[in-house]
Amino acid sequence: MTAGSNNSTLADWGELRFLDWLRRFLKDPPLPPGFALLVGVGDDAAQLRLAPVARDLVVTTDASIEGVHFRRQWIGPRDLGWKSLAVNLSDLAAMAARPIAAFLSLGVPPESQISDLKAFFLGLRDAGRRFGCPLVGGDLVRAPQWTIAVTALGAPEIPGRAIRRSEARPGQALFVTGATGESAAGLAALERGDRAPQFIARHRRPTPRLPEAAALVSVCPDLAMIDVSDGVRSDAGQIARASGVAVEIDVDALPISDALRRQARRAGVDPLDWALDGGEDYELLFTTLMGEATIRAAFDSLEIATPIHRIGRTVAGRGARLVDGAGRPVRRADATFRHF
Amino acid sequence: MTAGSNNSTLADWGELRFLDWLRRFLKDPPLPPGFALLVGVGDDAAQLRLAPVARDLVVTTDASIEGVHFRRQWIGPRDLGWKSLAVNLSDLAAMAARPIAAFLSLGVPPESQISDLKAFFLGLRDAGRRFGCPLVGGDLVRAPQWTIAVTALGAPEIPGRAIRRSEARPGQALFVTGATGESAAGLAALERGDRAPQFIARHRRPTPRLPEAAALVSVCPDLAMIDVSDGVRSDAGQIARASGVAVEIDVDALPISDALRRQARRAGVDPLDWALDGGEDYELLFTTLMGEATIRAAFDSLEIATPIHRIGRTVAGRGARLVDGAGRPVRRADATFRHF
Repeated sequence: MTAGSNNSTLADWGELRFLDWLRRFLKDPPLPPGFALLVGVGDDAAQLRLAPVARDLVVTTDASIEGVHFRRQWIGPRDLGWKSLAVNLSDLAAMAARPIAAFLSLGVPPESQISDLKAFFLGLRDAGRRFGCPLVGGDLVRAPQWTIAVTALGAPEIPGRAIRRSEARPGQALFVTGATGESAAGLAALERGDRAPQFIARHRRPTPRLPEAAALVSVCPDLAMIDVSDGVRSDAGQIARASGVAVEIDVDALPISDALRRQARRAGVDPLDWALDGGEDYELLFTTLMGEATIRAAFDSLEIATPIHRIGRTVAGRGARLVDGAGRPVRRADATFRHF
Repeated sequence: MTAGSNNSTLADWGELRFLDWLRRFLKDPPLPPGFALLVGVGDDAAQLRLAPVARDLVVTTDASIEGVHFRRQWIGPRDLGWKSLAVNLSDLAAMAARPIAAFLSLGVPPESQISDLKAFFLGLRDAGRRFGCPLVGGDLVRAPQWTIAVTALGAPEIPGRAIRRSEARPGQALFVTGATGESAAGLAALERGDRAPQFIARHRRPTPRLPEAAALVSVCPDLAMIDVSDGVRSDAGQIARASGVAVEIDVDALPISDALRRQARRAGVDPLDWALDGGEDYELLFTTLMGEATIRAAFDSLEIATPIHRIGRTVAGRGARLVDGAGRPVRRADATFRHF
């Protein structure tokens, strides 16, 4: 097999040839207006010129390990590239920050197919173009399995303002964008071999809620926010814990589509388990005193079609707890993914 | 075994308890003057307020994988923490940038000892205090082996100036700080079970050449620079390749101490192999028209005792090549670590 063939591995090509390919490839999208890349891939570090408005810098980093966070039989390299960037951009969204640029530490086995690596970087670029975040630097190393760590930089939508998960106060409403549980439904469909393209796409190509976050900060002076990566219950618990309040989740108010109900029936699962404890939806979960109509109007004025649902409230106390539509306590076993 | 015992694992403690420990722990060193941490560990992302001088941001990321880049039998967790940060700060030094803050993506097995994790973070803090770079954010995930990706942010020593490896021009001298080959000697001593504390320390606790870089930019208007991570020959080749020049390395000029010669004799190795192709020295390799006396005076004025040696020159052509003291070509097999 020649080094130029379609079955070339990284070991065939060597690092330098692959980085040469990558360097030419990484020219889009451009950085946001006002930012410039002075030194890009191929030096000891990247050097960025910041826009004068960038008084604050938001920085997030997330690692994803083959066999722990994903299985390559269930996600192709292009979707994996998309998702690796998208989940970091979701963290920026949770801080109401606008992406500036991303950096990648990628560990792969030497026998990795060049075609898979190219597809991975194409997927990163797909997400970068869609959400305005170029990959501008990183590190490529040998590893026993695919090991992906992305660091994304952003600038707060409202200069000088920080959106924390720790600023919930009793008396606010709890909202969620979009719908949760659909990524878990997609993962279950992959595990079972079901055809469920809508949910599988939600699992493989999540959409960071960046414009939604921008709309929210524009109308909510009292916003506490997190993105739903571990599940609504777990992430509401994070808000509760960080803020020193209790968060009540009204299980009757969680948006569950008819399609999700049908899929749950096929899988023999209660759809509420997915909606409550399924992870990787990358929706925004937030508390505010502002009303649903105000938020909806802000979304509409920016032509954001994403639904929002009021799914609970903050009260004095601690922890996240489940209630029904009448406010009575509900007990359900917790099905959240445990990292350790 | 109780969760509080000395043999606790991360699985015993759980992520939240460990992150609680980490949060309190991560308050020093402070960020450099003018910078502030608005949102730290425990939110979706960190938010930094940048000093007004920080017009440019230097960003570097490096991954290190157990079994590929290190073996835990040869480096303890505290040294590993030091080294993980130090190698990133060396990349900042190569850009003549001053550290601002670092971010860590850490993947570890659930059965990792809490005591090892604490030691790792203590080592990170040791290096952070020594070189003025706090760890301010990151991600902790499960992985089959220790998987470390650090991203460090810095600000150029001279605002607006970028130090590239691609700006070497024919006619410059090639210099190196300190001495190379000592980390390779330390690694070989570990492999052989030799007692060689001086070299083992160089391998385990490298010193990023940050003040040296600051001194160099202050006196060299024409600086091209890289840090020696793969070896002098390989990294000189990077300068040559990026700049479109040839770099001649005078093998007779490479500084090799008597102690290194003795250690090489014990190991049955030609010390020049270590000095030329041994990696992980994290010295600065640079080209400039400025003379040794000028650079020495700049070092002295900042009380920097680190030696510098002129070890070659740039000429028209391509690639790195070896010559002897009389300028005659020298052929030696290349012993550089191949990443893929």
